[in-house]
Order: sequence, then structure tokens, then C-alpha cells
Amino acid sequence: MSKVEQVKFCVRCGAATRLEEKFGAVRPICPTCGWICFIDPKVAAAVLIEQDRRVLLVRRVNEPFRGLWTLPAGFINGGEDPAQAAMRECLEETNLIVTVKRVLDVIAGREHQRGADFVIIYQAEIVSGEIVPADDADAADWFAYDALPPLAFEATQKILNRMR
Amino acid sequence: MSKVEQVKFCVRCGAATRLEEKFGAVRPICPTCGWICFIDPKVAAAVLIEQDRRVLLVRRVNEPFRGLWTLPAGFINGGEDPAQAAMRECLEETNLIVTVKRVLDVIAGREHQRGADFVIIYQAEIVSGEIVPADDADAADWFAYDALPPLAFEATQKILNRMR
Repeated sequence: MSKVEQVKFCVRCGAATRLEEKFGAVRPICPTCGWICFIDPKVAAAVLIEQDRRVLLVRRVNEPFRGLWTLPAGFINGGEDPAQAAMRECLEETNLIVTVKRVLDVIAGREHQRGADFVIIYQAEIVSGEIVPADDADAADWFAYDALPPLAFEATQKILNRMR
Repeated sequence: MSKVEQVKFCVRCGAATRLEEKFGAVRPICPTCGWICFIDPKVAAAVLIEQDRRVLLVRRVNEPFRGLWTLPAGFINGGEDPAQAAMRECLEETNLIVTVKRVLDVIAGREHQRGADFVIIYQAEIVSGEIVPADDADAADWFAYDALPPLAFEATQKILNRMR
């Protein structure tokens, strides 16, 4: 079932919605109060941090891809600065305070049902802290580009292939 | 009223929601069916196209900032590739078929109530077409960086300042 089809009721007034063409797409609308449901993208922000030509990766503790490695990353909340989201997720997963330097790329493509529609990847540098994995990660470590562990996402593979 | 406070009813079952701390933030949840409302960001995609050191801008036909100029841009729909969204919006507003070359930057900061939380700006090149303004634009033209017209958004000003 598509996200549009999952919106059966109006968030404002609770009336049953119906699907109508609005602003270039079929969207759930409320015939009672006029609410139009715009489905916004799910967006992740990730940090790529290098030290001595090695890259910092975390091991996923949650499904999907539990036990596989990826960049420190997570979802951007509505209203949140994507760069702040990337730094927040890195702190949560690695205990490192980092600062983003530039946008490396935006990689599109949802890879699983609860996944992001696209991920914004920032190059970042460590400000302070010692690595302590937590939250969505049960390990965090540095890897040379020619000795990477099993990777979780195609987006991770794409960006690491490009950096090596 | 914040976006979280606007979600009074469950989209799946129509029951009244309540606010609870879930996954690191206060979110509307449904006590009946368990739905958790994650507010995703509103994201815009824009194209920066140069020709002979002039940049392509469009004049806004809608409020806010009606009559002011900006990059061809628009909202990314849920599930849409941001680069495709940027090319789609450019076609809608200028009639030009373009191809994106790289991500220039991601600029954060909502500038009005119905605005984007952040905008992804792509450098793009024209593939084909003649300029015909339409949709959200009533004019489209090339401008030298030292002779820009009145600009609509801070994000537009930031990226154009950086390019000049």
C-alpha cells in the first residue's frame, strides 16, 4: 500500500479522506475541512569522516542490515537543519562531536520499506570526544578503503567507492 | 501551532491522537492502532544553470515574494528523486529540458510558513528547449551576477553570492 493510500482520515478533523488530483499529483484531501495531504520525503543525513585515509563506520544494531556497517546517519526531523541532524546522529551513534565541512553528495533511492527516500552525505571533521558506540550502533571503528567490512546500504557503497 | 500540534487524528483509523515522547522527540501517536506520526521535512530542489557567465532566473507569480526572482525550483514529493524533482520543476517553470551535473549545496532555513525546511541546489545544463515561463513563473531570463534583479529568498541570495 502506497503512503498516499495509507492516509484514510484527516489529521485535522478526523473525517474520511478521498484521493484527488491536486498540485500535480493524486493526494488525500479532506472533503470536510479542505486539508490536503502532501507526502514529504523521508530524508537521512550522514557524515563521512576520514582520519589517516581511513573512514569512520558504525555497525547497525537494528534491522534491516543488522550487523552490517554504514556511515553514522539518521533521519532528519521536520524543521531540522540537515547538517545539524548529521552532527546529532553522529554524536548519538559514536559519541563524537563533529562539524560538517561540505555536502559531498545527495544519493536517492529507498532501499527498504522504512528507509529514506534520499540521503545527504556531508564531509565532516572531529571536534572532540572518544568513540563510544550507542543508539543505533553497537560498534564504531576506522577502516581503510581497501579493507572495508560488509556494508549495509547501496548509498554507503556508492559514496565509499567514490572516495577510495 | 506547530506541525506536531496540527495532527489531532490518526490517518489510519481516525481516532484522536495524543503527544508522546517517541524515538527522541514528542510525536503524535494513536492510542488505538499504534500509529506514530513522524513529521518529515519539506524539501525543495533548485537548479542553477549558467550560460556565458549569466544565470537563469524565474519571476515568481505566487505569494510570498510575488514578482521577485529566484532559481527554478519546487518541492520534492515523497518518493521522488531530488535530482528528478529539480529537472521536473525547471521544465514546468521554463520549458527547458535540463540535466543535473552535481550538488552545489544544501541550504537550510524555512523562510515562510509554507516554505521548505531546506533546499538542495544542483548545477545543471540545458539539454533542449526554448524558454517559455509557466506554472509558478511568469518570466524567465538570464542575468549577469553583477546585475541581478530583486531576489525572492535568502537561500537564492546565498548561493548566487557564492557563485559570482
